This record gives sequence, structure tokens and C-alpha cells, in this order.
Amino acid sequence: MGKLWVLHGPNMNLLGSREPEKYGTQTLEDINQALIKRAETAGIPIQVAQTNFEGEIIQWIHSMGPEDFLIINPGAWTHYSYAIRDAIASVQVPTIEVHLSNIHAREEFRKTSVIAPVCRGQISGLGGKSYSLAMQYALELLTRQA
Amino acid sequence: MGKLWVLHGPNMNLLGSREPEKYGTQTLEDINQALIKRAETAGIPIQVAQTNFEGEIIQWIHSMGPEDFLIINPGAWTHYSYAIRDAIASVQVPTIEVHLSNIHAREEFRKTSVIAPVCRGQISGLGGKSYSLAMQYALELLTRQA
Amino acid sequence: MGKLWVLHGPNMNLLGSREPEKYGTQTLEDINQALIKRAETAGIPIQVAQTNFEGEIIQWIHSMGPEDFLIINPGAWTHYSYAIRDAIASVQVPTIEVHLSNIHAREEFRKTSVIAPVCRGQISGLGGKSYSLAMQYALELLTRQA
Amino acid sequence: MGKLWVLHGPNMNLLGSREPEKYGTQTLEDINQALIKRAETAGIPIQVAQTNFEGEIIQWIHSMGPEDFLIINPGAWTHYSYAIRDAIASVQVPTIEVHLSNIHAREEFRKTSVIAPVCRGQISGLGGKSYSLAMQYALELLTRQA
Amino acid sequence: MGKLWVLHGPNMNLLGSREPEKYGTQTLEDINQALIKRAETAGIPIQVAQTNFEGEIIQWIHSMGPEDFLIINPGAWTHYSYAIRDAIASVQVPTIEVHLSNIHAREEFRKTSVIAPVCRGQISGLGGKSYSLAMQYALELLTRQA
Amino acid sequence: MGKLWVLHGPNMNLLGSREPEKYGTQTLEDINQALIKRAETAGIPIQVAQTNFEGEIIQWIHSMGPEDFLIINPGAWTHYSYAIRDAIASVQVPTIEVHLSNIHAREEFRKTSVIAPVCRGQISGLGGKSYSLAMQYALELLTRQA
Amino acid sequence: MGKLWVLHGPNMNLLGSREPEKYGTQTLEDINQALIKRAETAGIPIQVAQTNFEGEIIQWIHSMGPEDFLIINPGAWTHYSYAIRDAIASVQVPTIEVHLSNIHAREEFRKTSVIAPVCRGQISGLGGKSYSLAMQYALELLTRQA
Amino acid sequence: MGKLWVLHGPNMNLLGSREPEKYGTQTLEDINQALIKRAETAGIPIQVAQTNFEGEIIQWIHSMGPEDFLIINPGAWTHYSYAIRDAIASVQVPTIEVHLSNIHAREEFRKTSVIAPVCRGQISGLGGKSYSLAMQYALELLTRQA
Amino acid sequence: MGKLWVLHGPNMNLLGSREPEKYGTQTLEDINQALIKRAETAGIPIQVAQTNFEGEIIQWIHSMGPEDFLIINPGAWTHYSYAIRDAIASVQVPTIEVHLSNIHAREEFRKTSVIAPVCRGQISGLGGKSYSLAMQYALELLTRQA
Amino acid sequence: MGKLWVLHGPNMNLLGSREPEKYGTQTLEDINQALIKRAETAGIPIQVAQTNFEGEIIQWIHSMGPEDFLIINPGAWTHYSYAIRDAIASVQVPTIEVHLSNIHAREEFRKTSVIAPVCRGQISGLGGKSYSLAMQYALELLTRQA
Amino acid sequence: MGKLWVLHGPNMNLLGSREPEKYGTQTLEDINQALIKRAETAGIPIQVAQTNFEGEIIQWIHSMGPEDFLIINPGAWTHYSYAIRDAIASVQVPTIEVHLSNIHAREEFRKTSVIAPVCRGQISGLGGKSYSLAMQYALELLTRQA
Amino acid sequence: MGKLWVLHGPNMNLLGSREPEKYGTQTLEDINQALIKRAETAGIPIQVAQTNFEGEIIQWIHSMGPEDFLIINPGAWTHYSYAIRDAIASVQVPTIEVHLSNIHAREEFRKTSVIAPVCRGQISGLGGKSYSLAMQYALELLTRQA
Repeated sequence: MGKLWVLHGPNMNLLGSREPEKYGTQTLEDINQALIKRAETAGIPIQVAQTNFEGEIIQWIHSMGPEDFLIINPGAWTHYSYAIRDAIASVQVPTIEVHLSNIHAREEFRKTSVIAPVCRGQISGLGGKSYSLAMQYALELLTRQA
Repeated sequence: MGKLWVLHGPNMNLLGSREPEKYGTQTLEDINQALIKRAETAGIPIQVAQTNFEGEIIQWIHSMGPEDFLIINPGAWTHYSYAIRDAIASVQVPTIEVHLSNIHAREEFRKTSVIAPVCRGQISGLGGKSYSLAMQYALELLTRQA
Repeated sequence: MGKLWVLHGPNMNLLGSREPEKYGTQTLEDINQALIKRAETAGIPIQVAQTNFEGEIIQWIHSMGPEDFLIINPGAWTHYSYAIRDAIASVQVPTIEVHLSNIHAREEFRKTSVIAPVCRGQISGLGGKSYSLAMQYALELLTRQA
Repeated sequence: MGKLWVLHGPNMNLLGSREPEKYGTQTLEDINQALIKRAETAGIPIQVAQTNFEGEIIQWIHSMGPEDFLIINPGAWTHYSYAIRDAIASVQVPTIEVHLSNIHAREEFRKTSVIAPVCRGQISGLGGKSYSLAMQYALELLTRQA
Repeated sequence: MGKLWVLHGPNMNLLGSREPEKYGTQTLEDINQALIKRAETAGIPIQVAQTNFEGEIIQWIHSMGPEDFLIINPGAWTHYSYAIRDAIASVQVPTIEVHLSNIHAREEFRKTSVIAPVCRGQISGLGGKSYSLAMQYALELLTRQA
Repeated sequence: MGKLWVLHGPNMNLLGSREPEKYGTQTLEDINQALIKRAETAGIPIQVAQTNFEGEIIQWIHSMGPEDFLIINPGAWTHYSYAIRDAIASVQVPTIEVHLSNIHAREEFRKTSVIAPVCRGQISGLGGKSYSLAMQYALELLTRQA
Repeated sequence: MGKLWVLHGPNMNLLGSREPEKYGTQTLEDINQALIKRAETAGIPIQVAQTNFEGEIIQWIHSMGPEDFLIINPGAWTHYSYAIRDAIASVQVPTIEVHLSNIHAREEFRKTSVIAPVCRGQISGLGGKSYSLAMQYALELLTRQA
Repeated sequence: MGKLWVLHGPNMNLLGSREPEKYGTQTLEDINQALIKRAETAGIPIQVAQTNFEGEIIQWIHSMGPEDFLIINPGAWTHYSYAIRDAIASVQVPTIEVHLSNIHAREEFRKTSVIAPVCRGQISGLGGKSYSLAMQYALELLTRQA
Repeated sequence: MGKLWVLHGPNMNLLGSREPEKYGTQTLEDINQALIKRAETAGIPIQVAQTNFEGEIIQWIHSMGPEDFLIINPGAWTHYSYAIRDAIASVQVPTIEVHLSNIHAREEFRKTSVIAPVCRGQISGLGGKSYSLAMQYALELLTRQA
Repeated sequence: MGKLWVLHGPNMNLLGSREPEKYGTQTLEDINQALIKRAETAGIPIQVAQTNFEGEIIQWIHSMGPEDFLIINPGAWTHYSYAIRDAIASVQVPTIEVHLSNIHAREEFRKTSVIAPVCRGQISGLGGKSYSLAMQYALELLTRQA
Repeated sequence: MGKLWVLHGPNMNLLGSREPEKYGTQTLEDINQALIKRAETAGIPIQVAQTNFEGEIIQWIHSMGPEDFLIINPGAWTHYSYAIRDAIASVQVPTIEVHLSNIHAREEFRKTSVIAPVCRGQISGLGGKSYSLAMQYALELLTRQA
Repeated sequence: MGKLWVLHGPNMNLLGSREPEKYGTQTLEDINQALIKRAETAGIPIQVAQTNFEGEIIQWIHSMGPEDFLIINPGAWTHYSYAIRDAIASVQVPTIEVHLSNIHAREEFRKTSVIAPVCRGQISGLGGKSYSLAMQYALELLTRQA
């Protein structure tokens, strides 16, 4: 059975403790616990991780199996990491790119994602809900396969 | 109690009958029925409509109340209708922009949304699920207000 | 004798009721009444209208006579409606483009008007006064012709 | 048997009466009558229409059948109406985009057509002949199918 | 009581004597006299000046008081003098930028004003009337303050 | 009496033998023979030629008389040969630029023609018909002159 | 009889004393003396001046008569002073823009002249000869008029 | 012994009295006095000046000797005065460009300095400290030379 | 009491040993020792580090406390690491970006810093002095807080 | 002794016979004869030629000796022939690029020369005088060498 | 058996005699002889040629057979000859584009190849070795086919 | 004696197992073994490594000696890692950038290499042969030095 991966990019570990006026007070741990609990309820294996190293997230992506599903918040890498783009394209695992804030309503450079073109879809601007909606999509897919 | 609006832009009425290889065989009617049924179950009033006239969609937006919620698929207007953008900004109703296909993986011009900057968030690339996930977000919000 | 036309584009009907911090509390009706009263005093026929349909404003422009004068606030169409530009160029009626807010001090896209190049002039940023100053110019012209 | 559609976009109704130095004195009615007569002679059903509403032209396109042929002069919409582009792409009816004037020899913005990429071809600059040459192409195709 | 300033930028002193086909035969002196006369009638102090030195216009702006009003025609400086922009922003005096000709209908570089973003509004294309309409706006404001 | 010129640019000599999936199986010889036959029927002198040398096509254009007509397919020169553009502008012979394929639906660089601005019109995307429609236009013009 | 003006822009006074490896050891005084001597020989009145103030050069241009001729080296103003451009356009005196160094072979920004479009011609890269060749052209013109 | 020059560009004379929320309450006089006092202590001759005339600052730069040092705050000229750039390049005096505010964190146009490429370095964003740090660098250099 | 951080980005460890003609012979160790000694003298705790891993520098930034101060030389990351930008923005510690060489006088891409907009200021081009001046600013701030 | 080359690019052979309103009635033969006569008087060997083939002009350039001088009017090749640029750079013969018309005052694309950066200078806009002034420069150089 | 073609573009004939500091002293003849000798050793027919005429290189490409292999150094045509690009695309012969110098380390315009997208690969910067490495690749391919 | 380094960037470890239709079935291990074997035969020390961490590849580059040679396939870093560019520039070891696929024939962003300008050359599009040809060049150089 496929596994669900939730990978968080750089600075996401600060969530909830820094700049709460922009990202809310919910911590990354809060988000992760909610996702894990729900995956367990659904009987779907889940792997959750955060890193500030591009190389590490690439290696996690490489380790995915053909039936897995990836929810990724690439943080600022969204705008320049063609290496992550290539990693996702290589493993051909269905992927949803998520963002807590609405990247289309901030600085000009945040409007462009170099990663989205190789993903199945993108959800942005809905806070922690960006993750849980992506998860709902993933669970249906993974459950149907099982 | 706030009402949930689901507005579809130009050409969406063809959904399911034309270019199924790009957009699937699900019709707009199928999508609408599922959304309506779910809203009824949740006890939330819902208004669903499609138009090929920019002026008509603007007027529907004008008629919204302060507690409503808007799910909008602006279709090709996404890329040039600053008038719809202004309409949404004016009524200040929380809005999610949805797209069936992944607009970031198609022609260059589809990567830019002139409407997203005034929305709360954007969901794209998940087919009919783009709508249902947006609805889930909306229902929680509307129910909490009620 | 020429007639004075005052045409308002999309979302202008919300004036005064929405986003008062940006556009003031004066309603479109207030502006229109002041303009009509002044035209009547001057003995100049006046036609005032608002629409959210590009096609409708084009048809109003088509109906103008060779001695008329047009004051137009194209709203967001300012930035993309080449069709309105062509309509004004076709009828060759002297036209002033007006804007309530200073379009040069807002988002980047608002700095470019695709319509202004076929107008006689442009007045922006002076609130309801943008209209009344345009009218003053128009009245002198129309009165001189009469 | 397929039907031939000839659709004229915004401001085309003024043809012959306004700016004759740019577009000649031939009226739209003149052009239409010539086209209709020729279609009748060829025994091909023909539908001719003009509109200043983007929504209306989109709906006409939606109503086309799989064996029809479209000759469209999108006027100023040529340069921004991605909605018309999507409409044509959806119905997959062979289409020729025509222009009375040489759009490549006028203002910079007229050089780009957002619609042409989904058409079979484009004819521009030959006045009323742009239509009649397009029709000749269409008639051969439609007759061969018949 | 606030004072009304009318400042003309480079080459404006040639008005009426050079290129009359572009700017008309009205001289700068004519315009100034009309403005002065009207200010006197209204009982508003007025200061009118022209210069070809960027430094001089900046110093005039510096000398303004908190209740003054500025009508400025920056001429060609409109397109590059960030120094004048900063001067206006510094004194925070309400300002209207005026132009005799329609800057949106001339060379490409004339479409951008680096000064307008710090002004209250802009009036262009109405010949000498661009000034007198700006003055009318100013007089109402200054009179109300008095 | 004016002569009709049909000039083909670089690589056109391969037509029909290479890349038939893109340009069809019709050879350049086929196209030429059809054009020649039709010109003879109409009693119009015709000159048909192909070259891969920019200098040669320029010299052919130079040799045209004031009553001639030019149908030119500049092939890839369309996108950079300002020298051919200048040649056509110099002789002031009415010219139609033709293309077998729809240049607006291919690579980005093919959308711009540096030659079209000095032509009367452009026909593209209609295969061999692009030539024959251009010829029909030319014949009417040349016959009328005769 | 027309007068010949030779105006040097900012930093030209340093010529010969600073950066000789880029501009040679010839001083501005050397250049001026040679030009004055030659004009006297030809019996043509000449006026030579240098300034670092944009306003001053504009006023010198304003003082020219209808039969004068201007040789101008605008120095770095070449690239941004639209005010000098407008001054030259206003007086409509035939003008040649000269540069000591080859502005096309230096930094990118030096390739664009905002002043050249209103001049009769431009001579660059020939050191002091850029001036003397311009003068030769001017003398012939002025002598012919005389 | 070399002299230390501190030159302030346009609008700097308003420092402390206008827009204190952006630039602080420290006046230019305050800054100058501190710099002068420190130079005197170090036994280094100092010349401090402010101007709103580009020509004047250019002439001050021209008057510098081979052992001098320049601290310049070009204000808004930073973004367009190629003439000041050329002046600095000509005299080849070591120069530091300073800015009170962080020019990289303001409007887009403020991010580009046309002057910095000919300076030794740039210090921005540190308020009055931008000057004093530059001075410290200069004093060490000048003292070492002495 | 706040701590002073000095972080060096990629390739900075080679300083002094490679490309001395561009960066001088001073080693990174030399710079560090000088900074440490000075901090000790001032009684301010200091932390100095260099890394070639973006993830590592991000984590060091995360570990900063609310009263710390950061001097960062992001090396080549200056031009693309939005992740470091976000890290600095998150911790809201006052930061100065420093560069040994004048980044405005080198390749085009070095003129843009994606990190500077979230810093308090930037010092570039002054070799090792860029660091020591930044330190001086930092020490004053940290001492005042203490 | 060095030889003087005068090379004319494409379409120059039409000079005087076509578009006289743009280029005057002087033929290329007229220009050539004047240049030849003057060279003979000066005792300088001269070679004059025109071609519409890029390859031919390149080969002429290749045949030049180390003491020759080139006056070249590349016509429309000015804007795209990097091959001619490379040819001139290879032979390292001093070269002046000339143009009859003011290339800075025409279409946008004519403002850029890809050839000028490898020339010593450029003379444009002075009609046949552009050549004769270039020749004067060349003669002095060649005579001095002799 | 397929033949190996080695085609050199404009100015390559000067190799070794001009600008040796940029391209070395090896002549084109040297390179050709080495290639011919090696092909003969391998028993592969080889055709080597150089031209300064775009038309000639296009015709050589046209004459290639389905089993041939092309090594091409398009020289400056690399950057604008879409005609050569189309020729290569038409014959569908495997092609390697080679350059003696590193085109990515020179002027900006040399970074873009309009021809490379239709080649199998590109080798640049390795001097004469660029050719011999390309040949090695070609020989293996041709030998395998044989 | 110099050592040969072969460094592979991100995602290269997947070679052969993922997306074989784009990159072939050859694994990175296959490529490495062939390179190692050949180096051993030639008696040249070789070091082969792959990493997904930018910091790691930078440190490997730092460890190179003055007589080494680098073959690098930077993968997606090619398009944004200025840090790797600086590392290569610092160590001044001769470097060839290689790519398996033709980067000029894929997405627009792959056409630009920020690393190639500091390399000696680039080989792309020849699959595993891109490496072996680079190696051949390297072996000759290293052997000659030995």
C-alpha cells in the first residue's frame, strides 16, 4: 500500500513561534499531529518531515515508492529550486504543492513556482487547511488504490 | 446565515462534453449536483451558476452579503479580467479561486492570475476535487459563523 | 446640439457602499445627480449610465452623434479593453477618461491605460471632482458649439 | 452537412460608416450579403452575426456542430480574449481568423493574437477580401465533406 | 491661509512661440495671467514661476507651507526626475500634475510619470484648461481651509 | 500589364519530401504548377522561383515593375531578414506574405514577422491554399489594372 | 546669417586632463580653438560653450534663431535628459549630436540616446574629429543659406 | 594632505524637518556637525555641502584633488544621473555612496544605483551611521596617506 | 545581553588563498580574529561561523535570540536564496548584509540582492572593512541595549 | 599604402530611384563617383562595391590588408548580421559605419546596431554627407600613414 | 554507408591568421586535414567545407542522406539563422553544433543558439578539440550503422 | 600529477532507474565504472562522486589542487547555483560542464547556465558520451602535464 509523505521546506520549523501575524499561532507540530492522527484513522502509513537542506528533501523524494503520494510545502525553494522540481519529476509520484499563505498576494517573486509545473495541483492561502485539504485528496487516492 | 456561492466562468458549461482528454468526462451538472447535495446536508444555503458574460458574474458578486463565501472558477478570465478582481475586492467576501487543471503546467499565459491576489487562496489541478475541497473549507467557515 | 454622455464602467455602481476608505462615501447616484443638475442648468442634454457589460458600453458609444462629448470612467477595463478603445476611436467624439483614485499611485498594472491614447485627455485622483472638472471642460465645448 | 459561421466581433457593425479612411466604405451588411449569396449558390447553410458582447460570441461558438466551419473576425478581442480562444479550442471546429486591416502594420499591441494559436490559419489586411478568401477555403472543405 | 503655487518645468517658457501645431498659440504668459486673475478674484495668494533648472524647482517646493497647494507641469522631467518626486513627497503639500498635451497618446516614454505616484491626481491633454481645472480644484480646497 | 511573382524562401524546395507530417506531401513543384496553370488561364504573366540566398530574393524583388504583384513565402527569413523587408518597402509593389503552416501556433519566435508590416496582408496556416488564395486576390487586382 | 552653436555637456570641461587613456590628451580648449578658427575663416559666426547645468544648456538652445545650426555633445545627458530633447525639438534648429568615444562599444546604457531622435544625425567615436566633421557639414549648410 | 568631501544631493536639506517617520529627527546640520568635529579631531581637512543642482555637485567633484576622498549621498540622483557617475569616474577619487534608508527595501526603482559601479563601496540603511561609518573608512585611508 | 553573530556564506573559507587579485590576501581567519578580539574588548559575546550549506546558515539564524545582531556575508546566495531571506525575516533580528567587493561594479546578476530587502542595511566594496564597520554599528546597538 | 574601401549593403543599389522622399534623389552611382574622384585627387587607392549577399560583403572584408580603411553602410544588416560584425572584428581594419538616414529617429529596431560595437565610429542621418565626412576622416588617416 | 559532413560557417576561413589570441594559431586547414585523415583511417567517407553564404550551407544540408551525420560550426549564424535551423530540422540528420570558443563566456548575445534546439548536442570552448570530440561521437555512430 | 574529478549534481543518482525515456537505461554506476576503468588504463588518478547537497559539491571543488581537472554535471543547479560558479572560479581548475540531454532543446529555463561562463567548455546532449568525450579531453591535458 502506498505511503503518504508530508514534507516541509526551509523555515517551516519556526511556524507558530515567529511572525504569527503572517502565519498564525499554529505550530508545525500541531499541523503534523493532526495529519498523523487522521492518517492513522484512515489506516494509511504516513511520513512527516521538515528540513532546511535542499539535499535532504531531494533524498526523501528519491526514497518514495511508485504508489506513494507527496504533499510538499517547499517554502522559499518554491521560487528557485529546479533541483526539487527534477526530483519530483523523476519519481513521478502524484504531488500537491501547498502553501500556508496566498503566494499570489505577496511579493512579486512569490507568484512564480518552479515546482508546480511538475505537480498534480497546488493549494495556497488556506493556512493549516492547505495541508488538510491536500491530505483529504491524497487519502481518497491512496485508499482507492489499496 | 451566510450563503455559499459557486460561480463558473466562460466555457465551463462545456465541461464533460468537449476535450474530455484535458478536463475529464465529468459534466458541470455532475459537479454542481454534488456540491448542492453536500451543502443541503450541511444545512448551508447554496447558489450555483455559470456564465459566459463578465458583466453577469460581476453582478452576482455584487449581490453577495457580508457573511457569504465565494468559490469561483474564472476560467480564461483568470488571466485578464481586472474587473472581476475589483468586484471581489469590493465586496470583501472570502473567496477561493479554483481550477480543474493545473494552470501552472500549461501555456505560459495561464501561470498568472490577476484575480488570485484578492482571494484568500487558490486550489488548482485537482479536477472536480478542486471544487469539493474548496467547499469543505467554506462549509467549516460558514458553519462556525452560524 | 451635442449631448453630454457620462458612462461609468464595472463596479462603479458599488461606489459609496463598499471600500469607502478607498473611494469615499459619496455614491454614484450622488455624483450623477450633481452632474445632471449642472447640465440642466447649462441647458445641455445629458445621458448618464453605468454598466458591468463591455458590450453595453460599446453600444452606448456607438449611438453617439458627431457633436456629442463623452466622459468615461472605464474602471478596470482601462487596463485591457481594446474593444472600448476602438469604439471611441471609431466615433471620434471628444472624450475625457476620468478616475476617482490616482491610478498612478496604486498597483503597477493600473498605471497603463489602453484607452487614454484615443481620448483627448485624462483626469485622475480627484474623487468626485474628477467628474465635475471633466464636465466643466465639456460644457464649455458644447456651449461654444451650440 | 456542416454549416458555415461568420462571426464579427466588437465595433464591426460600424464598418463603412466610421473611419472610412482606415477600413473603406464597404459596410458590414455589404460584406454579409456577398457572403450569404455565395454560400447559397454553393448550397452551404450559412449563419452570419455580429456582437459587441464576448459572452454572446462564446455562446454562438458553443452551438457549433462537429462538421461546421468558423470564420471569425474577433476585432479588438484578438489581443486579450483568452475566453474566446478557449471556446474555439473546446469545440474543435476548423477556424480562420480574419482581419480587414493588416494587424502587423499598426500599433504594437495589434501584432499579437491570443486566438490565432487555436485556429487553422489567419488572413489579414485584404479588406473585404479577407472574408471572401476565407470563405472560399471553407466552401471547399464543407463541400468535400458533404 | 494657504498659498497656491503654479510651477512650470523645462521648455514651458517657449509655449505659444514654438511648435504651435502641437501646443497651440496660447503663451505661458497668457496662462499665468488668467490664473493670477482668478486667484485674486478668489482672494487666494498665488505664486507662479517657470524654470529650466531642476534644482530651482526643488527649492521652490521646499519653501512651501503646510497649507499650500501645488499645481505642477514638470514637462520632460515627468519621466525621470525622481528628485522632484522626492521633493513633493517630503513637503506633503497636495499636488496636481498637469500636462497640456495628452501624454498617453505620444511617444512610449511619455506614458510613464515618476512624479504622479506622489501627487493627489493628474490632468492631461486639455491644453490651457488642464491648468484652470486644476486651479478650480485647488481654490475649493484652499477656500474651505480658510 | 503587371506580372505576378511568387517567391519561395529557404528550405521550401524540400516541400513534400521532408517532414510531411508537418507540411503535407504536396511538393513545391505541385504548388508551382497549379499557380502557373491558373495564371495562364487568366492571361496573367507569372514568374515563380525559390532560393536559399537572401541576396537572390532581394534582387528578384528589385527587378519588379510598378504594376507587378508579389506573393512571398519568406520561410525562416520572416523572423529576421530586415533586408527583405527593406527591399519590399523600396519597390512598393503590393505584397502578400504567405505561410503553409500556422506560424502563430508554433514556437514563440515564429509569431513575429519583420516583413509583414510592409506587406498588404498575410495568409497563414492553410497549406497550399495559402498560395492559391493569395493568387486569387492578386489576379483580381492585376486583371482590373489591365 | 545663421550662427553656429557648439554646446558641450557635463564633464566635458575635464577633457584632456582626466582619463586621457579613454578620451586622449586633447583639451576642450584645443577643440574649441580649432572650431572657432575654422568658423572665422569661413566667415560664420560661432558660439561655443560648456556647462554642467541642464537648465543652462536648455536656455542656450532656446536662444537660437531659425537659421542657426547646433552641434551638441550632451555627454551623459544623452541617456536621460528628455528635457534637452524637448528643447531641441522646440527650436527646430538642425542639430548634430556628437560623441568623442564610440558610445555603441561601451556600457549597455550608453547605446541609447534619448536626444538623437530629434536630431538630424549623429557622429560618434572619432575623437575631436567627431566635432570637426560635424562642423564641416554645418558650414556647408550655413554658407549655402547665406 | 588629502581632504575629505561630504556631498549631499537633492532634498537632503529637509532632513529632520520633513518625513521624520522615514528618516528620523536628526537634521542634516546635526550630521554635518558631527562629521566636521570628528574630522577636526583627526586633523583631516573636511568640506561639507548640499545642493539641489546636479551641475553644482558635478563642479564640486571636479574640484577634488588626487588625494581626496568623497562621501556622497546622491539622493534621488542615485537612480538616473549618469552625469554624476561620469564626474566621479573622471576624477578617480575613492568614493563611498551612502544612503540613510535601506534603498533595497523600498520602491523597485530605488534598488538600482547608476553611480555605485564607479564607487569603491556603498553603505545604506544605517541612518546617520551610514555617514559616520563611511567617514571612519575615509579617515583611516587619509591618515595613512598623510 | 544580546550576542553578535557573524556568518559567512559559500566559498568565503577560501578567502586570501584563492583569487587574491580580486579579494586581497587577508584570510577569513584574519578577519574573524580581528572581529572576535574587538568584541571581547567591548564585552559583547560573539559567534563566528562559515558554511557552504544553505541549510546550516538557516539553522544558525533560527537559533538567534530577540536581542542578537547579525552580520552576514551571504556570498553568492545573495542573488537567489529566498530561503535565507525568509529565515532573517522570521527571526526579526537586526541584520547588516556585507560584501568584500563592490557588488554593483561586477557582473549584472551581482547587482541584485534578494536578501537586502529584509536587512537593516548593506555595506559593500570595502574589503575587510565592510565587516569592521558593520561591527562598529552592531556594538553600539548591543552596548546601548545592555 | 592602405586602400580605402566603401561597401554598401542590401538595397543600396536602389538609391535615388525608389522612395526618394525618404532617401533623396541622389543615386548610389552619384555618391560613388564623388568618393572615387576625391580619393583619386588625394592619391589614395579606393575600392567601391555594393552587394545584396552577406557572404559577398564578408569576403570583401576578408580581403582587406592591415593598412586599409573601411567605410561600410550595412543597410538592414546593421540590425542582425553578427557575421559581418565578426568579419570586421577579425580583420581589425579601422571602420566607420555610415547611414544615410537617422537610424535613431525611425522604427524601434533600427536603433540597435550589432555592428557598431566593433567599429571605430558611426555617422548617421546626413544623407550622402554621411559618406563624405567618413571619407574625410579616412583620408587623413591613410595619408598620415603613407 | 552514411557520410560524415563537417561544415564551417562565416569567417571560419580566417582561423589561425586573424585574432590568434582569441582562437589560437591552428588554421582551418589544419583542423580539416586532421579530421579527414581520421575519417579515412576509420573508413568513413567525409565531406568538409566552409562558406560565408547562408544559402550555400543550407544547400549542402539539403544534399545529405538519411544515414549521414553533420558536425556544424555555424559561427555567428548560431545567433540568428533560423533558416539553417529549419534546414537541419528538415533533413533530420543527427547533428552536433560545435564552437571553438566558449560561447557562454563572451558577449551576452552569444549565449543563445537558435540552432542548438534542433541538434542532438553541442560542444563548445575546447578549441580544435571541439571538432575532434564531435567526430569521435560521429564515427562510433556511423561505424555502428555500417 | 593532477587528478581527474567527475562530480555529479542532484538527482543524477536516479539515472537509469527513473524516466528512462528521457535519459536512457544506463545507470550512473555504469557511467562511473567506464570512466574509472579508462582513467586507470591511462594511469591518471580519478575521483568520482555524486551529491544532492550544494554545500558538498562546493567543498569537493575547494579540495582540488592546481593541476587537477574537473568534469561536472551540475544537473538542475546549472540554472541557479551562483555558489558553485564562484567555487569553480576560485579554484581556477580547468572545467568542462556536461549534460546528458540537450539542454538547449528543453524548457526555456534550461537554456541558461550560470556555471558555464567560468568553465573552459560545455558538452551537452550526447548521453553517457558527454562524459566520455569530456574525459578524453581531460586525459590528454593531464597526460601532457605529467
